[in-house]
Amino acid sequence: MTKKVVFNPWEVSGEVNYNKLIKEFGVSNLKELPAVFNENILFRRKIVFAHRDIQRILEAVKNKKPFVMMTGLMPSGKFHIGHMILAKQMIFWQKLGAKIYIAVADIEAYNTRAQNLEESRKIALKEYITNYSALGLNLKKADIYFQSNRSDNAKKSNAYYKLQNLLSRYATFNEFKAVYGDITPGKMLSSLLQASDMLHPQLPEFEKPIPVLVPVGIDQDPHLRLARDISQRVKDYKFIQLSSTYHLFAPGLNSGKMSSSDPNSYIAMTDSPKEVETKIKKYAFSGGQATLEEHRKKGGNPDIDVSFQYLKMFFEQDDKKLAKIEQDYRSGKLLTGELKEYTIKKINAFLKEHQENMKKAEKDVERMFS
Amino acid sequence: MTKKVVFNPWEVSGEVNYNKLIKEFGVSNLKELPAVFNENILFRRKIVFAHRDIQRILEAVKNKKPFVMMTGLMPSGKFHIGHMILAKQMIFWQKLGAKIYIAVADIEAYNTRAQNLEESRKIALKEYITNYSALGLNLKKADIYFQSNRSDNAKKSNAYYKLQNLLSRYATFNEFKAVYGDITPGKMLSSLLQASDMLHPQLPEFEKPIPVLVPVGIDQDPHLRLARDISQRVKDYKFIQLSSTYHLFAPGLNSGKMSSSDPNSYIAMTDSPKEVETKIKKYAFSGGQATLEEHRKKGGNPDIDVSFQYLKMFFEQDDKKLAKIEQDYRSGKLLTGELKEYTIKKINAFLKEHQENMKKAEKDVERMFS
Repeated sequence: MTKKVVFNPWEVSGEVNYNKLIKEFGVSNLKELPAVFNENILFRRKIVFAHRDIQRILEAVKNKKPFVMMTGLMPSGKFHIGHMILAKQMIFWQKLGAKIYIAVADIEAYNTRAQNLEESRKIALKEYITNYSALGLNLKKADIYFQSNRSDNAKKSNAYYKLQNLLSRYATFNEFKAVYGDITPGKMLSSLLQASDMLHPQLPEFEKPIPVLVPVGIDQDPHLRLARDISQRVKDYKFIQLSSTYHLFAPGLNSGKMSSSDPNSYIAMTDSPKEVETKIKKYAFSGGQATLEEHRKKGGNPDIDVSFQYLKMFFEQDDKKLAKIEQDYRSGKLLTGELKEYTIKKINAFLKEHQENMKKAEKDVERMFS
Repeated sequence: MTKKVVFNPWEVSGEVNYNKLIKEFGVSNLKELPAVFNENILFRRKIVFAHRDIQRILEAVKNKKPFVMMTGLMPSGKFHIGHMILAKQMIFWQKLGAKIYIAVADIEAYNTRAQNLEESRKIALKEYITNYSALGLNLKKADIYFQSNRSDNAKKSNAYYKLQNLLSRYATFNEFKAVYGDITPGKMLSSLLQASDMLHPQLPEFEKPIPVLVPVGIDQDPHLRLARDISQRVKDYKFIQLSSTYHLFAPGLNSGKMSSSDPNSYIAMTDSPKEVETKIKKYAFSGGQATLEEHRKKGGNPDIDVSFQYLKMFFEQDDKKLAKIEQDYRSGKLLTGELKEYTIKKINAFLKEHQENMKKAEKDVERMFS
C-alpha cells in the first residue's frame, strides 16, 4: 500500500514515511541532539522530527551564545491541547536560553479571514498568551507583539515595517503562488509581513546578527522556504539563514484535523472533567477492534488510536508506562475502554493543575497588556 | 486633425483638448475659484486646470477649517524648474492654511528603481527639501517624512504602516495592473504605501477626520483613483474622499519630457547664468519660423515655444507683459532670438535670488534633518 504523504501523525509515524516526507520537503531528519533534548518528550518521541539548519542553534545553545526562537500565532477560536505542541517547544527553548519572539498575526487574520483587530487582540491575549503563561512561558522575557502594532519604540516599528516593504523587491509572484495557490494582495502583504516577522530579530534595531529558530508544523514549510529564499537576495543586509524545526500535528478527536471551528474535534484547556470524559468516550477515534472478542484476538492499533496519541504527545511522561500501554494495546490485553479511562484520568489531572495556573496567568496577562 | 491625448502642455492647451482630457479621466474643469487663487499664476493661467472633489477643500479655506495638502516626491536626480509647479502649489496651499504632508518615496525608489535608501535621503534633502524651503515653504510647519521611517512617534508609525497592510484586503490585482501595467510585488507594496501616504492624515493618530488635497500631474490620476476607490471600501474607518488637483507638465527644453536623466532637457536650480544662456539658446525648442523673413511674415507659435511656456508657467508674473509677448511673437514682431534673450534674463534674475535663498535653506535643512 502506497500512500501520498499527508500531515497527520500516524501517516508519517513509520520510518519509511518519515523519510519520504523529509525527502519531499528537502528538510533533514532530526538526530544526534544533545542530551538535554531527551528531557522533552516532543523531541524524545520525534513529535518534533525534522529541521533545516539547526546546527547553528545547537552551537549557540552549546556555547551559551544568544539566539532567538520566533513564532507566530493566528488568533482564532479556543486554545486547545493541539496548541501545546508549539507552546511546549517555546517554553523549552526559553529555558535553553532563547530570546522568545511571538507575533500575533492580527494583520494576517484581518486580510485572510476578515477578522477585525480588536477581536484578534482579545483572542490572542485571553486564549493564547494566557495559556502560554500558564504552561510555563516567562512572558516578561518574551517579546510578544501584534503585527498591527509592532512596538512602542518607533525605531523598532519603523525597522520592522521597512523590512516588509524592502523584502517585496526581492520576491516574485510565482513564489507567492507556490505558497498560497490563490493569491490576493491581502495574502501577499501578510506573507511579506510574516517574512519580516521571521527575519527582523536580526536587524540592528533588535538583536543584531543572531541565529533565529522558527519551529513550525511541517505544512508551514513553504512559508519558511519563501522567507529563507528572499532573505538571501537582500542586498543591504546579510541575513543569517533561518533555522527551523518541524513537528507533527495532534490528531483531532475524530482522527481528522483538530479544528477550532469544531469543538468536538478538540479538548479545550477549559474543558471540565465531564466534558473531557464525554469527548474521549464519544468522539476519540479508536484503534481497537469492533468487538471485545476480536480485540482480544487481533489486538488494537495504537498508531491510529487518538487516545494513545494524546498520551504519547502530551500526557504520559513515563516512557516505560507508555511502552507498556502500547504493547498491551497492540496485543489486545488492554481494551479501548480501559485505554480511554486512563487517558481521561491523565488529561483531567493535567487540566486541573493547568486551570489553577490559568488564574494567575490571567492576572499577569491583564497587567502586562492593558 | 485628431490627436490622442498626451501629457505635455501644448497638446492640451486648447479648450477642446482640455475638455477631452477631462472627459477621458473623469475629472472636472477647475473653474469659479475664489479670488485668492488669481494671485497665483498656476491657477490663473490654468497650469493647474482640473480637479476631483475640490469643493470640500475650498469650503475649508473659506471657513478657516483645517485641511491637509499631501504630496510625495520621488528623489531622483537634480531639482529643476519643472519641479516648481508642484513646489509653488505647496507653498500656496500652506499660505492658505493647509497642513503640509510630504512623503519622500524612498521605499518606492528602492522597490521600483533599485535606489538605496541612503541615496534617496541625500537627494531628497539636498535637492528637493532645500529647494522647497528656498522657494518659500515653511518646513517647520510641514510634516516631511520618509516612507521607510514614518515618524519618531511609534503610535504614528504603527498607524501608517498598519493602514498600508489593512488596505491590501480591499484591493484587487486588476486594479494594480490598471495603474502599473506590469505589476511586481515591489510595485504593489509601493502602491499600497502610497495609498496610505494619501489617506493616513485622516487617522486618529494624525489629524483625525480632515479633508486631504493631493495635487498631482494629470498622469498620476490612476494612483489617485486607486486610493480613492480602496478608501471607500474600508470597513473599519470612514475616510473622507480624497480631493485632488491636476496640473500640466513643464516641457523639456527639447519640447519632450523634462527628464532628470538628461541635463540638456532641463534648467537646474543650480545652473549658472552662462549655462542657462547656452541651454535656452542651444536647446530650447522654438515656435519660430525657419528664416527671419518667414517669421516676420507668418509669425511664431508661442503654444509650442518652450521659452514662452517657461515665461507663462514661471517667470513672467505680469499678465499684460505676457499677453504682449504672445501677441508680438504670434504676429512675427518678436523674433525667437529676442524671446530667448528675454527668457534668459528672467530665468537668471530668478535663479540669482533663488541661489541666494538656497544658502540659508541648506543650513535650515541640515539643522532639521541631522
